[in-house]
Amino acid sequence: MGKRHEQLHLGAFIYYAGHHHAGWRHPDSGVEGMFDIDWYRRLARTAERGKFDMIFFADLLYATNVEQAVAGMLEPITLLSALSAATEKIGLTATVSTTYNDPFNVARKFSTLDHISGGRAGWNIVTSQLDIEAHNYGKAKHPEHSLRYEMAHEFVDVVTRLWDSWEDGALVLNRETGQFADGTKVKPVDYKGQWYSTAGPLNVPRSPQGYPVLIQAGSSGPGQEFAASIGEVIFTAQQSLEAAQTFYENVNGKLAGYGRKRGSLKIMPGLSPVLGSTEEEAQRRHRELQELIPHAAITMFLSSLLGVDLSEHSLDDQLPDIPDPVEKFNGMKSRIQLIMNMAREEKLSMLELGRRVLGARGHLQFVGTPEQLADLIERWFESYACDGFNMMAPVLPGGLEEFVDEVVPILQKRGLFREDYTGHTLREHLGLERPAEHHFRLARASHS
Amino acid sequence: MGKRHEQLHLGAFIYYAGHHHAGWRHPDSGVEGMFDIDWYRRLARTAERGKFDMIFFADLLYATNVEQAVAGMLEPITLLSALSAATEKIGLTATVSTTYNDPFNVARKFSTLDHISGGRAGWNIVTSQLDIEAHNYGKAKHPEHSLRYEMAHEFVDVVTRLWDSWEDGALVLNRETGQFADGTKVKPVDYKGQWYSTAGPLNVPRSPQGYPVLIQAGSSGPGQEFAASIGEVIFTAQQSLEAAQTFYENVNGKLAGYGRKRGSLKIMPGLSPVLGSTEEEAQRRHRELQELIPHAAITMFLSSLLGVDLSEHSLDDQLPDIPDPVEKFNGMKSRIQLIMNMAREEKLSMLELGRRVLGARGHLQFVGTPEQLADLIERWFESYACDGFNMMAPVLPGGLEEFVDEVVPILQKRGLFREDYTGHTLREHLGLERPAEHHFRLARASHS
Repeated sequence: MGKRHEQLHLGAFIYYAGHHHAGWRHPDSGVEGMFDIDWYRRLARTAERGKFDMIFFADLLYATNVEQAVAGMLEPITLLSALSAATEKIGLTATVSTTYNDPFNVARKFSTLDHISGGRAGWNIVTSQLDIEAHNYGKAKHPEHSLRYEMAHEFVDVVTRLWDSWEDGALVLNRETGQFADGTKVKPVDYKGQWYSTAGPLNVPRSPQGYPVLIQAGSSGPGQEFAASIGEVIFTAQQSLEAAQTFYENVNGKLAGYGRKRGSLKIMPGLSPVLGSTEEEAQRRHRELQELIPHAAITMFLSSLLGVDLSEHSLDDQLPDIPDPVEKFNGMKSRIQLIMNMAREEKLSMLELGRRVLGARGHLQFVGTPEQLADLIERWFESYACDGFNMMAPVLPGGLEEFVDEVVPILQKRGLFREDYTGHTLREHLGLERPAEHHFRLARASHS
Repeated sequence: MGKRHEQLHLGAFIYYAGHHHAGWRHPDSGVEGMFDIDWYRRLARTAERGKFDMIFFADLLYATNVEQAVAGMLEPITLLSALSAATEKIGLTATVSTTYNDPFNVARKFSTLDHISGGRAGWNIVTSQLDIEAHNYGKAKHPEHSLRYEMAHEFVDVVTRLWDSWEDGALVLNRETGQFADGTKVKPVDYKGQWYSTAGPLNVPRSPQGYPVLIQAGSSGPGQEFAASIGEVIFTAQQSLEAAQTFYENVNGKLAGYGRKRGSLKIMPGLSPVLGSTEEEAQRRHRELQELIPHAAITMFLSSLLGVDLSEHSLDDQLPDIPDPVEKFNGMKSRIQLIMNMAREEKLSMLELGRRVLGARGHLQFVGTPEQLADLIERWFESYACDGFNMMAPVLPGGLEEFVDEVVPILQKRGLFREDYTGHTLREHLGLERPAEHHFRLARASHS
C-alpha cells in the first residue's frame, strides 16, 4: 500500500493514432481506423479494462500540412456519445474550446453527454492556440492570450450557471395535474457579461454529476489561476520531479484563496512512455520512432513555434539566438518556456531538440521497462508531484494495450491504483464531490 | 404493387414524449425516459424494426413555461451518435439551427455523425423561431424571417463547401513515405460571405454519404425556394390532399430552375395519427387526449401565436379580428396562415381551434383504424401529394409501436413500403444520389 491515503488517477489521452509525431507511421499504429468508430470502441474498452478514470480526447480546430503529418479528428463530444454505448464505467472527457463555441451550446452538449452516459462526462476547457483556427471561424486573428483567459473565465461562469438553472429534483411529471416541472426550481440565468450573455434556463435538466468534471489544460500564470478558481483536474506538462512538485504546491496553495479545499483539484501531468521488456529494447523502439520524424517537420515545427524562419539553418546546429519567443507566441506559453530552457541547458542540436519535442510534444518522455515506469509513477505520486497521469501512448492502440497489460497490474499490486471501479460516475472515480447548485458561483464570489 | 414506380418513405418524428401537446400526460407515455438514453434506444429500435427511412429529432433552443407544459430536450446530434451504436440501418436525422450555430462546428459534427454511423446522418436545417431563443444566445432579437433565410442559404453554402474540402480518396496513409494525405485533394475553402467566412479545409475527411442528407423544414415562399435550391427532403405541414398536391407540384416545378432533376427532393408532410381497432375507439382515444390540453395552455398558445392578449376572451367564442397576424409573426409563417384559414373556414371556437392546433401542432391529424390510415397514406402517395410521411406519434413510445405493428404490415402488403432495407446509408433508403464534390455549388452557380 502506498503512503498516500488516496490512490492515483489515470487518463488515456487519445491523440491521432498515437501521441508521438510520427506514431501513425509505426507498423503497429491503427491509423486506418482514425475515422472509424470501431477503432475508438477498441481504445475505450482497453482503457476501461485497465480501470482508467477516463478516456481523454484532444481537439484541434484545423487541418493543415496534410501531406507531411497526421491531421483531422472526429468531433470529440459526438464521438464520446457513441463510446458511452460501448462502455459502462470509464469517464468520457472531451476537449472543447471556449474561443470558438457558444456557452449555451456547450452547456447543453455536455449536459446531454452526462445524461446519456449516466454521469461520466468531463470537459477539458481550452482556449485554442492558432490564427488558422480563428480563420476557420471567420475571425482574422486568434485573440491574445490573457484576453482568451478572461473570456474563458466568463464562458465557464455562464456555462455553470446554465447547468445550475434546473435544480436537482425539478422534474415533477405529474400526469394528473399536468405539472411538468417545479417552476421554483427552474430559474432564468439572466447573465449579461462583457463577452457572453444568456437568459436561460438551459433546455436540459441538471445532469447526473450536477456538472461534468471541469478540466483545465494550461500551466501559464493565467492558466494556473483559472484552474485554481474553477478546475477540478489540471492537465499539465512537467519535465522534472522537482518542477512538478513546485507546480503541485503552487496550484494547491492557490485553492484556499478561492474558498476551496486542498485536493479538490487533481493534478495530472502528461506522460508518454515507450516500453520494452528490457531497457535496451525500449531504447531501440524509441530510436526507431524518433527517426520516423521527417527533418522537414522539425524545421517547420521549430520555425513556427519560435516565430522565425529556420530553413537556412542546419539541424545539427544549436538554436540561433531568438529574442523573446515566449512573448511573441500567442499559444501555449508555458510549453514554449519549457522547450527553450531544455534546449539551452542541455545544449541540444535542433535535430535533437526537434525530435525530443515532437516525440512527446513537450510532455514527459519515459523510455524503459514496465517496472521502471511503475517506479517513476510511484515516485512522482508519493512525493506529491502529481495526483496521477494522463497517459499519452506514442502509438495507438498498441501503446495503450501494453500499458494496461504490463504496467497497470504492477501499480495495482503496489496498492497505488484501483483493482476495479468502486463508483459509477467520473466524479466518483476521481474522488470529487458532486457540486451543489451555485457551488462555483459562491466560490468565486468569496474570492472577489 | 402501387402505381408509382418508387416506394414511399417514412420518418419517425420524435418530439418530447409524443407530438400531441398533452401526450406526455397520457398514462402510456414514457415521459420519465425523456432524459434517459434507454428510452431513446427503444424508440430507435422500434422505428428500425418498422424499416423506417429515418428517426427524426426536433429541436428547440429554449425551455419555458415548465410548470404547465413539457420542456427540455437532449441535444440531438449527441443523442443520435449514441443511438448509432444501438441501430444498424436506420437514418439518424437531427434538427440544427443555422441561426445559433457556427458553420465550421456544424459541418464537423454532422460529418462526424456520418462517419460514426456509416453514412446514416441527415440534417434538418431550420432557422429557429423565437426571441426567447435569441436571448439564450446573447442576442436581443431573433433575426427577421427573410434575413434568416438569406443567412441560412449562405450557412448551408459554407457547410457544403467544407464537406467538399476533402475529396473522396484524399487519405493516403503511406507509412513508408510519411505521406498522410494527398494535398491536391484537400483544399482550402476561402469563403468570405456576407455573414459567414471560413478558411478551411474542414478537419474531417469527406464522410460516407459525401454529405449528410439535407432536409428543409419550412413551407413559406423563401422556405420553398431554399428547399428547391439545396434540400433533398422537405418536411412540411399540409392539411388537405388538394393543398398538398399543389405544394408537391409547385416545389417539384422549381427544381429545374436550380439544375435539378424531378424527384431529387422528397416531399414528406407530417402526419399525426390516433389509432383504434374501430373508428369509435380511435375517436374516444383522440377525445381523451384533446381533453388533457389545459385551457390555460390554449389561451397562452393562441395569444403568443397571434401576438394579442386573449386572456379576457371566452374560449367558447371564435377568434376576434386580428390585423395581419402573419405579417406580425416572425416564426413559422406558413403554419400561421394555415391555422387562420382553418379557424375562419370552419368557424371554430377558440377551444376547438386550440385543441386542433395543439393536438397535432398544425400538422395533419388522422383519427381512425390502421386500415383507414393505410388508405390515407396510399391515397396521398399515389396521387402525388407526397413522397412519404414524417410520422408524428401523439404519445411515445406507444404511438410509434402501434404504427410499426399495425400499419407498416398493411403498407408492405400493398407493396407501398419496403419489406426490409436494401441499402446501408440514409441516401440509399431515400433513393438519393451520393453528391459528387461541388455538386451544390455548381447547381447554384447555374441558377444565378
